Amino acid sequence: MDWQALITDAGARIAPHVRHTPVATARFGDLILSLKFEQMQHTGSFKARGAFNTLMQARVPQAGVVAASGGNHGAAVAHAARILGHAARIYVPQIAGPAKIALIRAQGATLQVVPGAYAEAAARAAEWRRATGAMEVHPYDAEATVAGQGTVMAEWETQGLDADTVLIAVGGGGLVAGALGWLGGRRKVVAVEPATCAALHAAMAAGAPVDVEVSGIAANALGARRIGGLCLGLAQRYAVQTVLVSDTAIREAQTALWQEMRQLVEPAGATALAALLSGAYTPEDGERVAVLICGGNVAPDPLDSL
Amino acid sequence: MDWQALITDAGARIAPHVRHTPVATARFGDLILSLKFEQMQHTGSFKARGAFNTLMQARVPQAGVVAASGGNHGAAVAHAARILGHAARIYVPQIAGPAKIALIRAQGATLQVVPGAYAEAAARAAEWRRATGAMEVHPYDAEATVAGQGTVMAEWETQGLDADTVLIAVGGGGLVAGALGWLGGRRKVVAVEPATCAALHAAMAAGAPVDVEVSGIAANALGARRIGGLCLGLAQRYAVQTVLVSDTAIREAQTALWQEMRQLVEPAGATALAALLSGAYTPEDGERVAVLICGGNVAPDPLDSL
Repeated sequence: MDWQALITDAGARIAPHVRHTPVATARFGDLILSLKFEQMQHTGSFKARGAFNTLMQARVPQAGVVAASGGNHGAAVAHAARILGHAARIYVPQIAGPAKIALIRAQGATLQVVPGAYAEAAARAAEWRRATGAMEVHPYDAEATVAGQGTVMAEWETQGLDADTVLIAVGGGGLVAGALGWLGGRRKVVAVEPATCAALHAAMAAGAPVDVEVSGIAANALGARRIGGLCLGLAQRYAVQTVLVSDTAIREAQTALWQEMRQLVEPAGATALAALLSGAYTPEDGERVAVLICGGNVAPDPLDSL
Repeated sequence: MDWQALITDAGARIAPHVRHTPVATARFGDLILSLKFEQMQHTGSFKARGAFNTLMQARVPQAGVVAASGGNHGAAVAHAARILGHAARIYVPQIAGPAKIALIRAQGATLQVVPGAYAEAAARAAEWRRATGAMEVHPYDAEATVAGQGTVMAEWETQGLDADTVLIAVGGGGLVAGALGWLGGRRKVVAVEPATCAALHAAMAAGAPVDVEVSGIAANALGARRIGGLCLGLAQRYAVQTVLVSDTAIREAQTALWQEMRQLVEPAGATALAALLSGAYTPEDGERVAVLICGGNVAPDPLDSL
């Protein structure tokens, strides 16, 4: 698959609807890091890119689109569908939490909150697709999704990214797959997962996707039970290094992002930084490191406290 | 006074200690705006620039530095003093609130919380200066302060600012004075004040600084009783337009910044945007508008809710 071509096409396709998110350099202790604030994307995460790319390159049926989501993907699909004039039906598990559920509802989608975890929501979304012919938007393991997410890294390079190594949080693997596809080995990619949502780590060890248990503070964003096959293929091809971090390390990274830069992000958005601040990933002397901040839909909604 | 030269010198002087803050373009309803996120500066506001410039161009006495502040200036002075190795004593009024008081304390300064409003804190700071010979860092009406704050606008132009008009929130006027000094009339500057903290508006009407009552949700950052003389001189020279906004409009702009861009800012940080979203300032057809987001030290501390 020619990922560079797919991602270039995706970038041109979605350009009218996605934001160029800002970048900055910042020091955290002894570390000088390049950061990209992709949580400033529409609906608060990179997911808007894959959603727009998927909907814009397909013929969306009259029945509209359907998605199952821990929150961010659902909000992105609902947003893209509204902008593009399609009906959207989103199934979210209770685990998504009230802030993300409210965010999806605010996009104008038909929302179904499903008891249990992501797998139950996915089953209900599949039922709906079979019954109505609605188009399903996969959260991570589809070519159009991966190509859309890959535009983050393409954009960052146009902004002068100066790094040997890029740290990226991994759930189902759409974002890191897009980065790997775009970079094609030109920079090192480090895949960071919560120790309690380690689908890529487990798959790399097993040599194939395997089911994992998911839990912890980032689970509604990073808690895929099984890594996407597209991601695993790219991760194996480029021998990606996987790193695990604790929920404590993630919370400390959230705290550091607020205290140093007044950026309030959700646990998933701080997971890549957590690998550096906790020492789970230690750069070599002279290694220039970049961190992608990928999601900002923190709970509780901070507006509730103002 | 050659403000361009002073600001150029200030920029070179403080470069090792201040952050290039990111910029972005974003749509709010029908408005497409250029934004600069100066709340991502060290200690969460532009005040770090003036503080570093003041301390680095002076011979700081053994007694160290002293400042009175509603919060942001105190945090910036304490931070700069710590980095540069000076003792700092900061007087804050109770109105600063617990989040800003904790922020100043976290910088390692000796902190004195004074009952009442800013004027009482200022009186106590002046007493300390007279008794000890400590150097006082004025929050807005001093050449070194204004030159430091002017580096925000100089930096923005190096980042490709594409705007006819720049909206800036005004308290004592240090930031807007720096912008006016740097721009020298090359772009239109709109000075935005809360209707309840309208020191510049009142002074422009009276033709001289006059005392005003201050209150409202942005008062701990924008509640100067009297506009700085340097600011008023520049505002008169360039015939600055002043615009007033309500607390309701400020709160709505805070909400919009979070909902659109996941930027959680304090009321002062959303005040310039409030002028546009509320219609208090309506751009002409084709007028390209920029908004400076200047402070992020929101209360309560959002980390308390995580």
